[in-house]
Order: sequence, then structure tokens, then C-alpha cells
Amino acid sequence: MLKKSESPMIIVNYKTYLEATGRRAIELSKKAEKVKNEMDVFVGVAPQFADIAAVAKEVHIPVFAQHIDPNKAGSYTGHVLAESVKEAGAKGTLINHSERQLKISEINEAIRVARQNGLLSVVCANEPSTSAAVATLKPDIIAIEPPELIGTGIPVSKAKPEIVTGTVKLVREINSTVTILCGAGITNGEDVSAALKLGTQGVLVASGIVKAKDPYTVLREFAEATKRA
Amino acid sequence: MLKKSESPMIIVNYKTYLEATGRRAIELSKKAEKVKNEMDVFVGVAPQFADIAAVAKEVHIPVFAQHIDPNKAGSYTGHVLAESVKEAGAKGTLINHSERQLKISEINEAIRVARQNGLLSVVCANEPSTSAAVATLKPDIIAIEPPELIGTGIPVSKAKPEIVTGTVKLVREINSTVTILCGAGITNGEDVSAALKLGTQGVLVASGIVKAKDPYTVLREFAEATKRA
Amino acid sequence: MLKKSESPMIIVNYKTYLEATGRRAIELSKKAEKVKNEMDVFVGVAPQFADIAAVAKEVHIPVFAQHIDPNKAGSYTGHVLAESVKEAGAKGTLINHSERQLKISEINEAIRVARQNGLLSVVCANEPSTSAAVATLKPDIIAIEPPELIGTGIPVSKAKPEIVTGTVKLVREINSTVTILCGAGITNGEDVSAALKLGTQGVLVASGIVKAKDPYTVLREFAEATKRA
Amino acid sequence: MLKKSESPMIIVNYKTYLEATGRRAIELSKKAEKVKNEMDVFVGVAPQFADIAAVAKEVHIPVFAQHIDPNKAGSYTGHVLAESVKEAGAKGTLINHSERQLKISEINEAIRVARQNGLLSVVCANEPSTSAAVATLKPDIIAIEPPELIGTGIPVSKAKPEIVTGTVKLVREINSTVTILCGAGITNGEDVSAALKLGTQGVLVASGIVKAKDPYTVLREFAEATKRA
Repeated sequence: MLKKSESPMIIVNYKTYLEATGRRAIELSKKAEKVKNEMDVFVGVAPQFADIAAVAKEVHIPVFAQHIDPNKAGSYTGHVLAESVKEAGAKGTLINHSERQLKISEINEAIRVARQNGLLSVVCANEPSTSAAVATLKPDIIAIEPPELIGTGIPVSKAKPEIVTGTVKLVREINSTVTILCGAGITNGEDVSAALKLGTQGVLVASGIVKAKDPYTVLREFAEATKRA
Repeated sequence: MLKKSESPMIIVNYKTYLEATGRRAIELSKKAEKVKNEMDVFVGVAPQFADIAAVAKEVHIPVFAQHIDPNKAGSYTGHVLAESVKEAGAKGTLINHSERQLKISEINEAIRVARQNGLLSVVCANEPSTSAAVATLKPDIIAIEPPELIGTGIPVSKAKPEIVTGTVKLVREINSTVTILCGAGITNGEDVSAALKLGTQGVLVASGIVKAKDPYTVLREFAEATKRA
Repeated sequence: MLKKSESPMIIVNYKTYLEATGRRAIELSKKAEKVKNEMDVFVGVAPQFADIAAVAKEVHIPVFAQHIDPNKAGSYTGHVLAESVKEAGAKGTLINHSERQLKISEINEAIRVARQNGLLSVVCANEPSTSAAVATLKPDIIAIEPPELIGTGIPVSKAKPEIVTGTVKLVREINSTVTILCGAGITNGEDVSAALKLGTQGVLVASGIVKAKDPYTVLREFAEATKRA
Repeated sequence: MLKKSESPMIIVNYKTYLEATGRRAIELSKKAEKVKNEMDVFVGVAPQFADIAAVAKEVHIPVFAQHIDPNKAGSYTGHVLAESVKEAGAKGTLINHSERQLKISEINEAIRVARQNGLLSVVCANEPSTSAAVATLKPDIIAIEPPELIGTGIPVSKAKPEIVTGTVKLVREINSTVTILCGAGITNGEDVSAALKLGTQGVLVASGIVKAKDPYTVLREFAEATKRA
């Protein structure tokens, strides 16, 4: 099973962007691998379900599913089984992303089936209080998205520090070991540094990389920032 | 784009059965391909999202997604984009399976994005009246699941003929060209023959094949039955 | 059971507007009743669930629920039972409003339980094709919301006539007896006249009345327009 | 605003049982009020939305909604606004009942709008870990439903004590002031005593009262049990 990284983590969520679908998911993942090899940082990628197998075959960086369903094997047509993404090569999975939210009982069960299948669980939460709530469910990683950083488009590096530190503090009161990623407002190296300085252990990023004109260069800037922090 | 078959269609839904996940999805698909080659019938398979690419690469029978979301590309983490399953090799997709039902506006939009991406749409419906309703949305194929055949476990071949013919008649009043599959109560060749005699053009089957001790033999029996009908 | 009106119908959806919640729902309903009495037109109101009983007690115009769930009585905490809104005094119910959409199997079942409880069913649909689809399910009334009238804010009276007539035509091909309401872009008498001229039998309106400075005057203008049409 | 009771609480969930719909909701509530008056215990009732106003008018015991939506006033047809149930007379609301589960962000927001409207929030949770998670969201009351008591039908009084005490302990580690109700397996006075002895402050009960041949007598037995505990 993939171990949580001691060093800062960068996970790139491909969403359903065409720039990161199919063949282009592989191309982007190779750039991510290149940065990982050059900089010795943790870089993971979260492509669409149908791309997991091809990406996992072509690159040697950890692949995450964007979602799993909390179901066991059986009559669940159209659902995403942990066993399935695992066998396709995923090493972890996002859970409860703001674009694919689950009921609380489902989050709990999804974390459990992820663990049973040796998948790192990255649970997303939209507010300080819900971040604390998911921390009680003992996922491996929490991706916090402070609403001030989503709603207003303020980058982490320009936000009032207490916005991030407050969420980190709440989560830490509940769970001292969970890895915390900052999941909103990350578009450049400065944001990455800021996120780390404020007490997180990495970032979950999407359009900042996928939609960049030159994803390799921006991701490399991210990686360099993790070294400075 | 895959054309609808003139001859009877057999589509095997792998659901999230472990017997048809990952490596075993490929093995089962090879058996399906063997039957197709020996008998010259239409056999399609619907594996889980993460298995589409590998199955489509290993076999030369049409692969269907089990579901697509009605969204366009963009910020839809964890959703299933038509473009994605298409590029992975899918030739069609199930929509609105009883285990993954959609709002009516979503069914309409999913049929549209399937068409835009050259994917055959197979829309499932649970009753005569909803079968007629989805017929108005002009999918390529409708899979009807007469409730008497689900609820009670009665095989098609033992059901009162009017149960299936009534649904077929309702659908035909709305839509004269849609292909109609019978999607419940199919476990042996006799059921396949019965479904065809009652006015459908094929079957959507799941556990009857996937959970069979010898899927190849049962599927071959299905194929032979389509020749007799 | 409430009969469908032969004359044009005006149904006012109170949504969850504070202007039409609680005591204010009753006040607004009394204004609607006044217009009904003065003009001898069909005016129905659809308040929130908790206001149905008080409104039905205070006024003598038909009250509609905004939604019912397709469930039978039993273990459905937090759901809306047809029997419950019926006993509270509702004579009908909206189903599948764009803000409370249902799966197609649920729409079908909700129409059925409405009928079993003597409630007029008003099923909303967002597009010509979905309007036709719900027409097959034989509700009493369909409220069509041509997307051009929602998306762009064009009033019916200013829209190209074929936008509404096309939807009406599609619905009529499926169902010759269903009452058709126009459910978007209605803010003044001119819009009401236009909706009726284009082949609908009434309007479903919300903010146009509820948010009006003087709801009585605007509703009276609507009622007068139905006489001119 | 209704204060949380210092003495044990009994809340009766009417679900959508016909035995507790409309006129019969009022009758049952009067029996509950009688027990409250005779025994000086806290008894609350949670009727369907459309019955809240009539029940709140007829009895002087606290009425709870079975659910509220996390939305603010506006374009939310068919949703349940906190302001609406409040004005109808509700003093509190269930949230996230196992039959009406919410996303975690919605639970958080529903608790918030309940508080803003002076409604006591009773959040249900299905497992020890999710009970702890909702405890971080600071509702007024948590109703825990230990799965062993649901799945197997074991009454609390016959269950291994650690099943309930373990959940209570987990919740208390997070939140020392929240009131904890036991929400499964309660059918007689012995169960009520057991629930209280194991560290909860009351019970959430449904069919045990509503479906009883003589609800008054059973509820009175419950009330007596709270005195003994």
C-alpha cells in the first residue's frame, strides 16, 4: 500500500477537463512524472475512471480515483467499486469532493472500503466545521477548501492567514495524524508556499495545472515551492 | 459509429460483480467474443468504467459504459464524461439503469451527449409507462424491465405473453424504430427465444451470464436461441 | 375531486419565498381569492407544505402542494405523503418542478399516488422532448418551461411563437387531453395572453406575482388577460 | 426558544405512518400531551410537515419537523424552509434521519439555519464514527442509532452495554454538552431505562409508539421508566 508522504504532497485533480481526458491524461501525467523525478517530490494525479488504467500503466507516480462509491461488489450498475479502481492501478481515491458530495454515512463507508482495499483516502471538506467532522472519520488525508478561498477567488498567499490556520487547528484538535492538504486557491508557487507555511502538508490542485498553458512549468514551480517552505 | 444490429442483440451488464472486475472482466469478454465469432451474433459487454479501456483493447466486440453523466466537460469531479468512455473505447452506454436512475432532464441530456459522441444509447425503463416515456426521447435502444419479471423472478419464457407484448406495443406507438431489449428474467436460451418471439430485438442480461458456472456455455446457448427465434 | 378547469388556469407557486411564507401565505392567498371571485377565473396557489392547512382553511380556491414523494405510507421520515397533503386540504400537487426534479420512475409513481388520492397532478418539464415524455405518463396537467424562456429571460409575449407552439404540438401528438400550462417568462397580462394564444390553457407563475409590489393588481391583470385571449 | 430539557427527553417520530397522519396526528399528540401533563416529562412529537401547524395549535408539547432543507428563502420549490416550519409552530427539527440523509455540508448548514431560527436541532447518525462526526458540528441533540440495534432488532435492554456506551463515549470526547438520544430498538419501558443507564439522555422512538395498539399506555410506560432510571 502507498504510504502517506513525509514530504509535501501535490495531487492534481483532472476533473472532467478535456485537456486531461484520454490520451491527454497520459501526456499530462508524464509531465507530472517528470517533475516528480527531477524534484523528488510527491506528485499524484486523479484522472477520470476510464483513464486510470492507462495512466497507471504509463507513469510511475501514484494515481487516485476521483471518487469511489461506498458499495460492496454486486448489483450496483454504474457505480465505482474500490476493488475496480484498485485493480486498474489506483493507489488512492478522492472522496466527497465538492462536486461529488456524499452523505455522511457514505463517506464513512467509503473510507472503510478504501482502507480495506489498500487505497489512500483523501476526503474533501468545504468548511472548517465539516473539515473537523470528517477528521473524526479517520481518513488518511483531508483536503480542506476554506470557503473564503473558493467563493471569492482569493489565493491562499493573499488570504488572511487565520483562514487556513483556523481550519488546520480545528482538524488537529480532532485528529493529530491526518495529512492536511489545501484544496482551493492554488495557482502558483507562492500559493503552495503559503499553504505549507500555514500548517498544511500539501495541496490539491485542478485548473491551476490542467488549464495552464504550460502545465509542466507551473507544476515544477509548485514542486520548487515545496522545497522552500 | 457502431450501427444498431439488424440481428438480435445480447448485451451483458457486468454490474460491479467481482466475477467481472479487472482481469476477470477481460477473461469474460474473451468468452463473449468467442461466442460472437462462432455464432455470428451481436454480443456487447458493459464492464465497469475502469475496465472499459482494457476490455476494448483485448476484444473486438462492442463495449458499453454502464452509465454516463449528462454533463459537458469541466468541473465535474467524479462524474463520467461521454468523451472519456468514448476515447477509452466504448461504443455505447447504458443510461438510467434501475440501479443508477436519473432525472428525466438528465436522461434527455445523456442521450444527447451520447449521440454527439457517437455512442449508442441504451436507456433502461422499469415499467410500461416509463418505457413509453423514454421512447419519446429517441434513444437508440430501450431496455424494458417488466416489473412482473423483476419482482417475482418469473422468467420471460414462463410469463404471460401480454406482459412483454403490452410494453412493446406501448413503446411502438411512440417510436417505431427504437430497438427494444428485454432486460429482466433472462437466464437461459428459452428465455431469450421467448423475449424475441414477444417482439423484442434482444436481451440485456447480467447475473444470468456473469454469475453462471460456465458463462461461455450459457452465452452460447443464448446465441443459439437467437437463431431459432 | 377537483376537476380540471375548462377556462384558463392560473397557478401561483409560492416557492420558499418569505413573502409567501406563513401568515403572509394566507394574506397572498386571500388576494388570489379576491381576484377569483371578482373575475370568475381559475386561480390556484401552491404554498409550502407547512402552510397548506392554514391556507386551505382560510380561502376557497384550490391549494396545490409543491411536491409529493412517490412513497406509500410507512418509514419515510421527512418525505411528503400524498395522503398527508390531501388531508391538509390540498386539491392537487406540482410534481418534478425544475427545483425539485425526480427520477422518471418516481414521476410515474407520484402521478399514480396523486390520482389514487384524488389530487390533480401538475407535472413540470424543462424541454420540448421531456414535456412529450411526461405526457405519456398521463398527468392531469403539464407545465412546460421552454428553455428559451428561462435561460434568456425572454417573456412569452416577446418570444418567437414557434418556441411555445412547437412544445405544445409535441405534447399534443402524445396526449390530446392533457391541460398545458406555460411555466416560464410570465410577468404581465400580455404574457398571459400570449401563452394562451399559442395553445396553452393557462400559466404557472411564481415571482411574477409573489415578488410583485402589488400582487393583487398584477394577478387581476393576469385574470383579465385570460378573458381577452 | 425551546430549551433543551434537563430531564430525559422522549421524541416520537410520526414518519409517514397513516396512524399518525392528519386528524390522527392530532389525536396521537393529545395522548402524548396527556402523558406529559401526568408525568412531568419531556415529550416531543415530530409529525409530517403538513400537520405541524394543526398539531402545534392543538397541544402544548414541543413539535419537531422531520427534516429541514439547508436552503435560505428563495427559488426552492418543494423544499422545507426553517422559517416555514418555525412559523407553523415547530420548536425543533430532526436532521439527517436515516430515511432522509443529507450531505455533510448540508447537515452543517441545516444546523446553522435551525439555530438562526431558534429551532432545536436533532441530528441523527447511524454509527459510532458518524455520531462523533456530527458531534463536531455542534447540534443541540444527537440521536444515535447503533447499527447492532437496527440491523438485528435487538432492543437496547438486551444489547451488550458496550454497544451504546461506546458510542456515547466517542461523542463525549468530541462534545461534552450535546444531548444524546438513543434512536433504535426502543419498544418498552425497559428499553428506555436501559438507554438512560447507558449514558443517553432520552430516546427517539417511532413505531414503538405510533404502531402500538394503545400508544398512550406505552408512552406512559416510557415516561415512568425515565423516572426510575
